[in-house]
Amino acid sequence: MKFGLFGGAIAKRGDKSPDSQGYGRLIELVQEAEGLGFHSVFLVEHHFTGAGQVSATLNLLTYLAAKTERIRLGTAVTVLPWHDPVLLAEQAATLDLLSRGRLDFGIGKGYRDVEFASFRIPKDEALARYEESLALIVKSWTSDERFDHDGRYWQYSDIVVEPPVLQKPHPPLWTGAGTDESIARVAESGLNVLFDQFAGFGRTEERLLVWRAACARAGRAFDPMQVALARAVAITDGAREYAAAVEARERRTAGMVRAYGALPGLQGSQPASYADAGRASDALIGDPDVVLRRMRELRAMGFEYVLMLLPDDAATLRRFAREIMPELQGEGAPAA
Amino acid sequence: MKFGLFGGAIAKRGDKSPDSQGYGRLIELVQEAEGLGFHSVFLVEHHFTGAGQVSATLNLLTYLAAKTERIRLGTAVTVLPWHDPVLLAEQAATLDLLSRGRLDFGIGKGYRDVEFASFRIPKDEALARYEESLALIVKSWTSDERFDHDGRYWQYSDIVVEPPVLQKPHPPLWTGAGTDESIARVAESGLNVLFDQFAGFGRTEERLLVWRAACARAGRAFDPMQVALARAVAITDGAREYAAAVEARERRTAGMVRAYGALPGLQGSQPASYADAGRASDALIGDPDVVLRRMRELRAMGFEYVLMLLPDDAATLRRFAREIMPELQGEGAPAA
Repeated sequence: MKFGLFGGAIAKRGDKSPDSQGYGRLIELVQEAEGLGFHSVFLVEHHFTGAGQVSATLNLLTYLAAKTERIRLGTAVTVLPWHDPVLLAEQAATLDLLSRGRLDFGIGKGYRDVEFASFRIPKDEALARYEESLALIVKSWTSDERFDHDGRYWQYSDIVVEPPVLQKPHPPLWTGAGTDESIARVAESGLNVLFDQFAGFGRTEERLLVWRAACARAGRAFDPMQVALARAVAITDGAREYAAAVEARERRTAGMVRAYGALPGLQGSQPASYADAGRASDALIGDPDVVLRRMRELRAMGFEYVLMLLPDDAATLRRFAREIMPELQGEGAPAA
Repeated sequence: MKFGLFGGAIAKRGDKSPDSQGYGRLIELVQEAEGLGFHSVFLVEHHFTGAGQVSATLNLLTYLAAKTERIRLGTAVTVLPWHDPVLLAEQAATLDLLSRGRLDFGIGKGYRDVEFASFRIPKDEALARYEESLALIVKSWTSDERFDHDGRYWQYSDIVVEPPVLQKPHPPLWTGAGTDESIARVAESGLNVLFDQFAGFGRTEERLLVWRAACARAGRAFDPMQVALARAVAITDGAREYAAAVEARERRTAGMVRAYGALPGLQGSQPASYADAGRASDALIGDPDVVLRRMRELRAMGFEYVLMLLPDDAATLRRFAREIMPELQGEGAPAA
C-alpha cells in the first residue's frame, strides 16, 4: 500500500499569530511526511469561506515543490468553473515543470452553493463549464501547434500555452466521484478517481466494485494507484483518547455540514464506545492494532492507496509512519 | 544605491534539455543574487509567445520565495485585464504570506496587440479593466468585511478574500510609465513607478524630473526607493568584448521589436565604438570604470534603485556585485 495526505491549512484575516493549522505548520508537516515515506499530499481549494481555507492552491503547492524532493503534489480539488482555463493550464504546467513532474491535478465542477453564488456562476452551468475547461486544459498542455478556441464560456485566438508540462502527455488528472453513475463516468473518461473521507466502509467497498466493473466495461486496466481513498485517521491509546478522538472527528464533520451543507458520501457517526472501535464507520480511529486492522480491511477490498486526512500535529504522522505503514507497505494486494 | 534584477526565463515546448535561460538557471541566478546583495528580482509575465516566456509569474515567484530568504519578489508586470481580479488577489496574497512580506506587485494594462487579440479582449477596454481590477484587488486585500462587487467587467457577491496579505495595508504596487502624462498619473495614484530599460539617459533624467514635480504637486514625498529604473548592464574587458556586447544588446532589442512591435521608450542604439562607450545610450555597457561612471550619472540624476536586466550567466552578476556595487552602495544621493 501507499499513503498520501489530504487537507489544507488555515490563514485567517486578523490572526495576529499563525495558529497550529497555519501555512507554516502545513509546510513543516509535508516536509516531515516526505521523510516518513508518504507518497503525496493533496490540498483543498476554497474561496471566500471566512475561515481562512487555502484558496491559491497551485501557488501553495509550488512553494511546497521547492521545499520537497519526492512527494507528489496534488489538488483536491481545483474547481474548474471558477478559473480561466488557459491561465490555469499555465499555472499547473509551471508547477509540473518546477516540481520535476510531481503534479497530480485534481479537478471538480464544484458543489458548494455559496461559492457559485459568490462567483455569480449559475450552478446549472457547472457541468458544461467543467467539460469545456477540461478539454481546453488538456489541449493547452498537449498542443505544440497554435489553435483557436471558440467555446461557450471561453474564447481565445491563435494561442500556444507555455511552459510545457513535464509529465507526458500531461499530469495525471483526478476527480471525485460518489454515485455509481459518476464513478462509471470517471472510469470511462480515463481520469483517476478520488473517493471521499465520509462514506462508510460498506459504501466504500461498493464504490470500488463499481469502479472495477466500469473499468472492465471501458477496456481500462484496473490500476489500484489510480484510486485514492481519503480517510481520517486517529491513533489513540486506550478508551479516554478514543472517546476524545471520536468527539473531535464528529465535531469537525458537524462543523463542515453546518458551514457548507450536506457533504457527499456522509454516513452516520463513529462507534462511540472503545469496545466498538473498528466497527463500521468512516474514519480509522483506535489503538494502533485497530487502525492496522481497518487498513487491512481496505487493502482486502482492493484499495492500495489511502490519503490520510492531515492531522494537526506531526506526532500522529510519525506514529502512523512507524507503527502502521511498515506493516502494510510490504503486503501486496490480494489476487483480483 | 540599491540594485535589483529584472527579466524572465525561457521554457520552450519541445526543448529536450533546459537551456541556459531555463527556469532552473533563473532560480540559481536569483539564489546567487541574494547572496551577492541584490535587493529584488522583478519577473515579466507574457502569454502565448511561442518563445517560452514566463506566464505564471506569481507561481514562479512563489517557488523562488521558498528558495530565498531576503530578496524581494516582484512582477513586472502582471497585466490586469487578463486575470480574474479576486483569484489574482488570492494568489498574490498567498505569495506575500509565504514570502513573509516580500511581494512587490507590478501591474499594467497591457500593450502587446497580439495578447489582446489572443485573449479576445478589445484593447480599448484595457484602461477600464485595469482600473476596475486594481480597485477590486486593493479592496480584496484590505477588507475584513464581506462585500459585493458589481463592476462592468467582474461581479461577485458576499466575498471576503483570503489568505490575508502580510504587508499592511497591502504589498507595494508598481507600474510602468513612459510619457509625462502617465508618469504624473502614477505619481498621483500613489503607486510606485518602473522606468523602462530602453529610454536613453536624457529622457530617463526628464522622467525623474516629471515624477518629482508630480509628487510635489500631489503632496507626495519623494522616495527614491519608489522609483525603479530598469537597465541592461554588460561589463566588458577591452574593445573586442565591448563590440560583442553592443552587438548582442542590439540583436536582442531588434528581436523584441520584431516580435512585439514598438517598445515603449526605445531610443536609438548603443555607441558602436569602444572609445565612445559611456556616451548617450540606454544600456550600461563597457569596462568596469565605464559602467561605474554611468551608474554614478544615474545616481546624480536622483536614481537610487536600478534593476539590472538579468544576465545569462552568474559571472556578470558576480562582477557587478564585486566591482560596481560596493563603490555605489556607500554613496548617498546628492541633496535634492
